[in-house]
Amino acid sequence: MLIAVSQQAAGDLTAAAARAAAAGAQLLLCPEMVTTGYHIGADIPALSEPADGPAARAMARLAREHGIALAYGYPERDGHDVFNAVQLIGPDGTRLANYRKTHLFGELDRAWFTPGERAVVQAELHGIRIGLLICYDVEFPETVRAHALAGADLLLVPTALMTPYEIVADTLVPARAYESQLYVAYANHTGRERELRYCGRSCVVAPTGQVLTRAGSAEQLLLAQIEPELLRTSRAENTHLTDRRPELYPDLVREGATA
Amino acid sequence: MLIAVSQQAAGDLTAAAARAAAAGAQLLLCPEMVTTGYHIGADIPALSEPADGPAARAMARLAREHGIALAYGYPERDGHDVFNAVQLIGPDGTRLANYRKTHLFGELDRAWFTPGERAVVQAELHGIRIGLLICYDVEFPETVRAHALAGADLLLVPTALMTPYEIVADTLVPARAYESQLYVAYANHTGRERELRYCGRSCVVAPTGQVLTRAGSAEQLLLAQIEPELLRTSRAENTHLTDRRPELYPDLVREGATA
Repeated sequence: MLIAVSQQAAGDLTAAAARAAAAGAQLLLCPEMVTTGYHIGADIPALSEPADGPAARAMARLAREHGIALAYGYPERDGHDVFNAVQLIGPDGTRLANYRKTHLFGELDRAWFTPGERAVVQAELHGIRIGLLICYDVEFPETVRAHALAGADLLLVPTALMTPYEIVADTLVPARAYESQLYVAYANHTGRERELRYCGRSCVVAPTGQVLTRAGSAEQLLLAQIEPELLRTSRAENTHLTDRRPELYPDLVREGATA
Repeated sequence: MLIAVSQQAAGDLTAAAARAAAAGAQLLLCPEMVTTGYHIGADIPALSEPADGPAARAMARLAREHGIALAYGYPERDGHDVFNAVQLIGPDGTRLANYRKTHLFGELDRAWFTPGERAVVQAELHGIRIGLLICYDVEFPETVRAHALAGADLLLVPTALMTPYEIVADTLVPARAYESQLYVAYANHTGRERELRYCGRSCVVAPTGQVLTRAGSAEQLLLAQIEPELLRTSRAENTHLTDRRPELYPDLVREGATA
C-alpha cells in the first residue's frame, strides 16, 4: 500500500488529497488538529464537532472524490467533552475508526481536552492493520507496544511537534518502529501558531528502523510503500515481540507506580 | 559523579581502571563478558565463575587499588546454570549488585545461558541510584521503564553489539534515556570475534536525550558527568514518568500476549 503524509499548516486538505491520489497513494495522513489548527486555545470548544459532524462529512466527500483513505486530526465534541481526536475515513467515505488522544501534553492539551480512555483503536485497510495515536502518545513506548501486541502493521500519528522537541521525530519515532516491529507514519505541522514554531520532520519509518522518507521544516507531501513482505522478514529477524518477558514487568501496569 | 566507559576488546581491565581513576572517574563501566570474550561458544562453561569467584576477587582488588567502582560483564556459574551477568563492585571492593541478563539474544546467548529471572537489580553509589542491564535487554523499553519506576538515575549497560545493529546504539539507547528520564551508559566491544564484527559506538546519554559522549569503532575511554541537578530539571520539564497511564496498557504484562 502506498501512503502519503501531508506535512502542512492547518487548513484545507483538498490539494494534498488530490496530489496524493494522483501519485497513486491509497491513504493520506494529515497532522493533529489539521482542520482547525492546534494552538487555538479558547477557540477549541466552538470549533469542536461530533465524529460525524460537518468536517467529517466534508472529509468523506473528499475521500470518495479521490478514492483515497484519509486520516486527519480534529477536535471532537461528545456531549460536554472535547477530545483531541484522529479519524480514519475509507476511500468510499466510510468512517473506519476514531481515536481520542489518551496522553495529553501539558497545559496546551489539558486546558481544553478530556483524555481518551481507549489506548488501542485499530482498523483494517487493504489488508494492513492500522493503529491510531496522536503526538505525545507516541513518546510512550507502552502505547506502541500495546498496538503491536494487538496486531498493528502501521501506526498513523498526526502530531503538532514544536521546537525544541526534534528528538521525538528524529529518535523516538524510529525507535518505536524498530522495537515494536511496525511501520510508523508521523505527520507534523509547519510554520508557526502564536508562540509555537513547528519543527516539521514528518517521516515514515519501516520496522527495520530505516527512515523511508523524512521532511525538512517546509510544507511537503511524503510518499512511502507499506510492504507486508518487509513486515514478515523484519519480524523474523528482529524477534523483539516474541522475546518479551511480560511476567518480569508487573510494575508497568501498576497504578500509582509512576516514579 | 564522573563515570568512565571503557570501549575495548575482552581482556585486562587494569589499564582502563588506571586511566579512569587518573581522570577522576568514580565508576568504570566495561563491556558484556569482558573478562572472557563474548563470542567464545563452547569455552563459556569452563570459563564461568561464581559471583564471588577468582575474577570477582581480582576485580575487587583492582577497585580497591584505584579507589574506583567497577561494573563488568562475565559468565556467572551458579550450580549447573551459567548466566550472562554483570557485577558492580564498589571502590572498597565490596560487591554491590549482580544482574543476570533476562532477555537472551538468539542462539549466541541461548545456546549457553540460563535467562535471569529478576528484571530490576539496583544499587546506590555516591547518592546515585544505579540499575544494571545487559545488551539486548535495553532494546526492550519495558526493562528501562521498570528501572525508572524503581527509581534508577543511571543505567549501566555492558554490551556486545555487532554490525549491522548500529541502530541500537545510535537510536534506541538515546530514546531510552529520554523516554524514561535517566542517564544511560552503554559500553561495547571493539574489533572482531570469529565472524562477529563489533560496531563500537559506546555512549553516555543524558535524560534530556543529549548524547554526552560517543565512541567510534576503536578502543576508547569515554568520560561523562552524572548530574543529579540535571536529572531534576529534565524530569520537571519532561514529565513522561508521571504522565503514563498504566491502567490503559494491561496487555503489556499478560503472558502469552506476545504478538
